[in-house]
Amino acid sequence: MTTPQAIQVSVLGWAPPIVHGLVRDLRVRWALEEAGWPYSEHVVNQAEQASAKYRELQPFGQVPAMQCDGLKLFESGAIVHYISERSPALMPDDPAARSQVTAWMFGALNSIEPPIMMLNVLDMIYQGPKGDEYNGLRAWVAGWVESRLDVLGGVLEGKEYVLGRFTAADVLLTTVLRILRDTDYVTKRSVLDAYQRRCEARPAFKKALKDHMASFEKHAPKT
Amino acid sequence: MTTPQAIQVSVLGWAPPIVHGLVRDLRVRWALEEAGWPYSEHVVNQAEQASAKYRELQPFGQVPAMQCDGLKLFESGAIVHYISERSPALMPDDPAARSQVTAWMFGALNSIEPPIMMLNVLDMIYQGPKGDEYNGLRAWVAGWVESRLDVLGGVLEGKEYVLGRFTAADVLLTTVLRILRDTDYVTKRSVLDAYQRRCEARPAFKKALKDHMASFEKHAPKT
Repeated sequence: MTTPQAIQVSVLGWAPPIVHGLVRDLRVRWALEEAGWPYSEHVVNQAEQASAKYRELQPFGQVPAMQCDGLKLFESGAIVHYISERSPALMPDDPAARSQVTAWMFGALNSIEPPIMMLNVLDMIYQGPKGDEYNGLRAWVAGWVESRLDVLGGVLEGKEYVLGRFTAADVLLTTVLRILRDTDYVTKRSVLDAYQRRCEARPAFKKALKDHMASFEKHAPKT
Repeated sequence: MTTPQAIQVSVLGWAPPIVHGLVRDLRVRWALEEAGWPYSEHVVNQAEQASAKYRELQPFGQVPAMQCDGLKLFESGAIVHYISERSPALMPDDPAARSQVTAWMFGALNSIEPPIMMLNVLDMIYQGPKGDEYNGLRAWVAGWVESRLDVLGGVLEGKEYVLGRFTAADVLLTTVLRILRDTDYVTKRSVLDAYQRRCEARPAFKKALKDHMASFEKHAPKT
């Protein structure tokens, strides 16, 4: 399979520092680095995100979207899946193994990320009073997060990566775990903590994160 | 491509009536009906869901899991994707159209379902006092849900299905919208309401829902 040409990934021109290192273009950059596919950045500002033209590419106005080979792709999960289906660095050849990679990609985004995002909304976005109602809800959501992390920790026990060798599933799992960086839910689980560090030590991740952060730096409003 | 043989889908032996018609095996049943692939049910009870043997098939102990052709699959999104990649009834041949189907599958499960599930947790699962803190949070989440539904409504304007013809993306979008059945978020948007009715009028959906409900009936505890 030939490498797709003229890949363009949409990234944010500005985002609040609290989400630097978390915005979903990081997933796509990482997958592209692992695959060894060069790409260029399509920087979008807030006005462009709302524009009809950008919404043709990404209906929700989010990043990332990716264009290559005349295709328009959106949703970080779909884009990483597209890359991984075409790159042996992210998905093995064996059909049984491929189906497991896809299952864990959906698992990362549908069984693990939703409770984590809900916790994130409670911790970071909700700015109202935090009394009994808030605490009751947060405890319930935290229990949901912990039960999912316990499963993942059990699966990762004794393994380097979720399916043994590195795959696209690890790209999504690691970037989902990163959302918990201001909590101790990952760090207090030694298996998960070691897993996240192992994934983030990969040269492709480091390059992707560096470029992701550099883009915010480059496009920061001049004061 | 030959039809996979001896397909087995895991379904719940018991679930509270409040989730009948919503449990995720419905998605897989529907996709299988659209594809015209016969399958058998693998009924799991709560003890089996917790067992190491079932966790080998579905790490989180959830339904559905699917076995076929010697493969083990889990996550409703991954299973529907697997079926759709092999069935022209669920995915067109054209590469650009296929990438759009996959993007909308991830979009349904990652941009639309998470806020809806969060609202569902607040409305259905949280049983504590519902005062100012709860109301503040619920209003924020409801706004998130509405903004996503507004985008989907805009995309569906003037179309029968999200990509024109029926695809696997409609299976996931419809089953996500169903989670809102006790609210008016869908019914008050005529485009979305008509879309959901159109999808649910398909013979494959009706057969899938009938079998899904029949399974709860058949395995209900005898009183």
